[in-house]
Amino acid sequence: MKAIINSDSLVLLDSNHRSVKEFLPELKLKITSCKDDSPFEFVVLEAMLMEMFSSLDDRLAELGQAAEDVLHRLLDPQLFSVDRGELHILLQHSKSLSEFHSIVKDIEATLTDVLDSEEDMADMYLTHFADTGEYRDEEDIEDINNILEAYLMQAENMMSEVQTLRDSIDQSESIILINLDSQRNVMMRLSLQLEMGVFSATISGLIGMAFGMNLDSSLEENPYAFWVTTGCMMMLCGLLWKRLLSILFSSLTRSPPPRRLTPPTSSRSRGR
Amino acid sequence: MKAIINSDSLVLLDSNHRSVKEFLPELKLKITSCKDDSPFEFVVLEAMLMEMFSSLDDRLAELGQAAEDVLHRLLDPQLFSVDRGELHILLQHSKSLSEFHSIVKDIEATLTDVLDSEEDMADMYLTHFADTGEYRDEEDIEDINNILEAYLMQAENMMSEVQTLRDSIDQSESIILINLDSQRNVMMRLSLQLEMGVFSATISGLIGMAFGMNLDSSLEENPYAFWVTTGCMMMLCGLLWKRLLSILFSSLTRSPPPRRLTPPTSSRSRGR
Amino acid sequence: MKAIINSDSLVLLDSNHRSVKEFLPELKLKITSCKDDSPFEFVVLEAMLMEMFSSLDDRLAELGQAAEDVLHRLLDPQLFSVDRGELHILLQHSKSLSEFHSIVKDIEATLTDVLDSEEDMADMYLTHFADTGEYRDEEDIEDINNILEAYLMQAENMMSEVQTLRDSIDQSESIILINLDSQRNVMMRLSLQLEMGVFSATISGLIGMAFGMNLDSSLEENPYAFWVTTGCMMMLCGLLWKRLLSILFSSLTRSPPPRRLTPPTSSRSRGR
Amino acid sequence: MKAIINSDSLVLLDSNHRSVKEFLPELKLKITSCKDDSPFEFVVLEAMLMEMFSSLDDRLAELGQAAEDVLHRLLDPQLFSVDRGELHILLQHSKSLSEFHSIVKDIEATLTDVLDSEEDMADMYLTHFADTGEYRDEEDIEDINNILEAYLMQAENMMSEVQTLRDSIDQSESIILINLDSQRNVMMRLSLQLEMGVFSATISGLIGMAFGMNLDSSLEENPYAFWVTTGCMMMLCGLLWKRLLSILFSSLTRSPPPRRLTPPTSSRSRGR
Amino acid sequence: MKAIINSDSLVLLDSNHRSVKEFLPELKLKITSCKDDSPFEFVVLEAMLMEMFSSLDDRLAELGQAAEDVLHRLLDPQLFSVDRGELHILLQHSKSLSEFHSIVKDIEATLTDVLDSEEDMADMYLTHFADTGEYRDEEDIEDINNILEAYLMQAENMMSEVQTLRDSIDQSESIILINLDSQRNVMMRLSLQLEMGVFSATISGLIGMAFGMNLDSSLEENPYAFWVTTGCMMMLCGLLWKRLLSILFSSLTRSPPPRRLTPPTSSRSRGR
Repeated sequence: MKAIINSDSLVLLDSNHRSVKEFLPELKLKITSCKDDSPFEFVVLEAMLMEMFSSLDDRLAELGQAAEDVLHRLLDPQLFSVDRGELHILLQHSKSLSEFHSIVKDIEATLTDVLDSEEDMADMYLTHFADTGEYRDEEDIEDINNILEAYLMQAENMMSEVQTLRDSIDQSESIILINLDSQRNVMMRLSLQLEMGVFSATISGLIGMAFGMNLDSSLEENPYAFWVTTGCMMMLCGLLWKRLLSILFSSLTRSPPPRRLTPPTSSRSRGR
Repeated sequence: MKAIINSDSLVLLDSNHRSVKEFLPELKLKITSCKDDSPFEFVVLEAMLMEMFSSLDDRLAELGQAAEDVLHRLLDPQLFSVDRGELHILLQHSKSLSEFHSIVKDIEATLTDVLDSEEDMADMYLTHFADTGEYRDEEDIEDINNILEAYLMQAENMMSEVQTLRDSIDQSESIILINLDSQRNVMMRLSLQLEMGVFSATISGLIGMAFGMNLDSSLEENPYAFWVTTGCMMMLCGLLWKRLLSILFSSLTRSPPPRRLTPPTSSRSRGR
Repeated sequence: MKAIINSDSLVLLDSNHRSVKEFLPELKLKITSCKDDSPFEFVVLEAMLMEMFSSLDDRLAELGQAAEDVLHRLLDPQLFSVDRGELHILLQHSKSLSEFHSIVKDIEATLTDVLDSEEDMADMYLTHFADTGEYRDEEDIEDINNILEAYLMQAENMMSEVQTLRDSIDQSESIILINLDSQRNVMMRLSLQLEMGVFSATISGLIGMAFGMNLDSSLEENPYAFWVTTGCMMMLCGLLWKRLLSILFSSLTRSPPPRRLTPPTSSRSRGR
Repeated sequence: MKAIINSDSLVLLDSNHRSVKEFLPELKLKITSCKDDSPFEFVVLEAMLMEMFSSLDDRLAELGQAAEDVLHRLLDPQLFSVDRGELHILLQHSKSLSEFHSIVKDIEATLTDVLDSEEDMADMYLTHFADTGEYRDEEDIEDINNILEAYLMQAENMMSEVQTLRDSIDQSESIILINLDSQRNVMMRLSLQLEMGVFSATISGLIGMAFGMNLDSSLEENPYAFWVTTGCMMMLCGLLWKRLLSILFSSLTRSPPPRRLTPPTSSRSRGR
Repeated sequence: MKAIINSDSLVLLDSNHRSVKEFLPELKLKITSCKDDSPFEFVVLEAMLMEMFSSLDDRLAELGQAAEDVLHRLLDPQLFSVDRGELHILLQHSKSLSEFHSIVKDIEATLTDVLDSEEDMADMYLTHFADTGEYRDEEDIEDINNILEAYLMQAENMMSEVQTLRDSIDQSESIILINLDSQRNVMMRLSLQLEMGVFSATISGLIGMAFGMNLDSSLEENPYAFWVTTGCMMMLCGLLWKRLLSILFSSLTRSPPPRRLTPPTSSRSRGR
């Protein structure tokens, strides 16, 4: 929304834009309803700033809500993987946020620039200039100063909200990564336990396979051989597995508990 | 907690809020007990700042304690995966911290703003204005300056504590990731060792399987064939496995020790 | 593009460079066509700044477009791995961006330096000096100030665009990592389900292997034994697999839903 | 270490603290030995600052050494996983560093504050005030300025050393992660090669299993059938494995070499 | 390199250091060859600054080249894992860079400090002081100001080059991580495809195993049973594998294409 404000007229650029059209009746109402002694240009400026900030506020609330929703779905503890569609949406939100961030930063910089230059602010007293033919004294610019400072503060609040949101997205991404990694570890342990079982069965299966060969082991007619061998095979399989599981358990918890360092509090008190 | 302070009265907004109600008796006590010559508005302001900072302090201590607890549980060396519930709690704490951060930053910014403007501070001498009808001289604002500076310093301390906490959370997250990765490597090595065993058994099992076929190998009646073949099979399996394990070991430690670079100390001394 | 500007002549350094040659006719046109009263040195300076910024703008648009294209291809949801060639291109773009960033930062710093020193700006009124023999008054430097401020603002806009682009690349890289991790979890779950099947088959296969041994189980002639054993084997395999799958499912969703913390809004209202 | 310094006396708070007690004799020595004309309060102040900075220096050197040691052990190229105990120690060091950072930042801020306020520095000439009954002229505060600036510079150096250390820890963590990932890839390739072998053996084992069935294949009496089938089985297994390994190799190096972009140097020369 | 410069003599500290010795003849040459009217102390100061910056430049070029080389080798698209030796070298370079960074930052800070204090710069006119017995007027310090500003600009350029290099290292590390992850996904998919094959063969192998049992299936004499069963087994294996591969394919590309959000351009136009 760009406009040229005179002391008694307002030229709106981009006047065909939808949001500008919607804003016009509201603006008219404000100008006519405003009956105090603030000059025309300030009423218009304030109305336009208010409109701009309210649309920014809406946009931020919308973005924040959308981002929170996506993060909530992505962090759902029932999921073991992440929906790629949701990730894309999160990326889009995150991009919109960084565009939003740069817009608000622009506005903040512009407001700060104007507030820093007392000359620029004095030049904004258009009605005063039209009435008296002189520029406003640079000492006497309380009104415009107050208007701009109020909106500068709003811009700063917005910036800090955007920052909080971006931090929240970053944090959530870390948590998602840790979560996926942790899930992977859970699966890997299960997988390892199964592999141990397969290993045990395969190794002990070699016995069965040996006796399955059409070669003469001279035990063929022994009535106990079948049961003894089968029993050995099963027992070997079971014992091997149990042993392997206990190795896994101990190798995952092998590390000694962390040694306590010299308490940092002592350094604190000495440092002061 | 918002309030309008006059030189002889205090209007509390949100006066129905629980924490405001709790604070009232305390405030009364302070105002009546304070018998030195500082004007009413400063006594109230200081009481309110003190109340605000003490509640912030409590909140920070609580948050810090909670975060430390969660991190301690997450970093427990007995765990090979991470409890998703704990991760969620950590995320919540981390969000609360960044909200807390932005609140304290706000307060800091406001205090700095007021301290930067000698005019604003002079305007705060309400009793002086009520008594003399004149604004305070801008040179003579020691009292309010001291009060605000003390709380600004408190805010800065809080900021740096929050920063330390956030750094600690970030660091812990990195450590957790490394920890999970490392656990995965441990499991992967175990898994690889087992796979090598399965591979060896499967390959040597092919021999047994060949002799298990109902085909004529003309060795069926040979009384030594069974024992020779079984022995070969077992030995092949064992040797293969041993060889594979040594390949694994060498491939994990293959890299040459890092070459020493030109010592950075020389550059340092030349740089000065 | 380096040049020495006098009040009535222009010496271009590097005048053999292609881009400088292309720029010359354009510059001539501008100088001759400019018929207002701005002195020669400002016309040249503005033309050169405009040329420089337009070439920077082109370069930025090109880089931005290229980076967006690569990111779009890298984030294609049909991919389960990442094309290394694309990664290299992304890295190149990211390096070009950071070079571009430091160039624009340089320009920004130079413009700010000149704008901060009113003496330097006054010294730039070469025609004034040539005509009057005196340096320009330091108060009266609106023209050059306006020219430089306009381009400083352009430089700042460029900086914030570059920043937005770099944020976008960083975010996309995080998303790519999460995506790959998530894909890996999906594959790992599939793999685990298969492993469970293999495990079940191997364990129950031990039964078959036992009866395959050429040893006397005294069940050889029993006409039901074959069907009973085969049925047991298959059923064991199926039941084992089903049980394992349900263990997998429960271990992936074991964590309790995250406990709700005390709502952060209360802290907010107390904090104010 | 807190103290109240007067122009002729010194009150030490926390005088029971061990480090304060140790410091006392040293301080006495300094005060008595100092025979030049600097006033009592500066001698004490400088002694206390020196003591504080030397204890900070010791602490920093100790922390830096400890962190370097842990990092060195963690980066040992012979390791394929990371010792959790070491990780914990690294985390502790990293926390101590960030506490140390905030202490030094505090000190830096306080010194800067005092140096910024010429009034505060003038007020520090206690002996001058005691002797003449007047505050020191704010122009004439070279001595205290020099003392404080020297320690401010020390604090800044410390800050930059701490920053370098923290960067080093961050960098090392990245390298450790890459290292673990790379190790995992090495193991994964080995694992994949083995799986290919198991796959080949299992598939070709199906042939042997088919002939192992107690069903009539009418080849039972063929004297060549055993050797032909066994040969086929082994060859199938070998060929299959070889083929799979070449697929693995090509799929890991499939990506085309990265295309060269337009050289960034051209943009550089145009940008200037 | 530390030195005490007088208006007519130069005392070099650390005069035994190799680099200082090498620098001496050069310095002599410069002092004698310099025949313009700039005082002795400035000739020496400029020569020393030039020497220092040229050695820093050399060091930076060397570091940059080395880092680029390592990164180039680490990013070689033919590698599927990362050489640990190279990683160590990268870490060393990265540490050297951050030390270099803090040295240049120190120099920059010192130059800025001196440039900020007009008094310090006036004090540097030693010859002036020696000749006239008076300190230089603080307004008339163009010469020293120009010398220092030129080197400050050099330091700033160096800082931004170092920053670009560090960004490049960070970016490359991210790319390396993504690359390794992506490689792992490629291998995992291959592995999963093989596992599916093994699974199919194992499951269908159960049929063969059942008929391999020495139990009476009453199909022993059926001449077609062998071929039918073998055919079923192979077909089951093939079909199962094909089906599993298609499940894998669909589960990796399951996610719907990302939904388009409301185009961010609208918010942009509204925001302005």
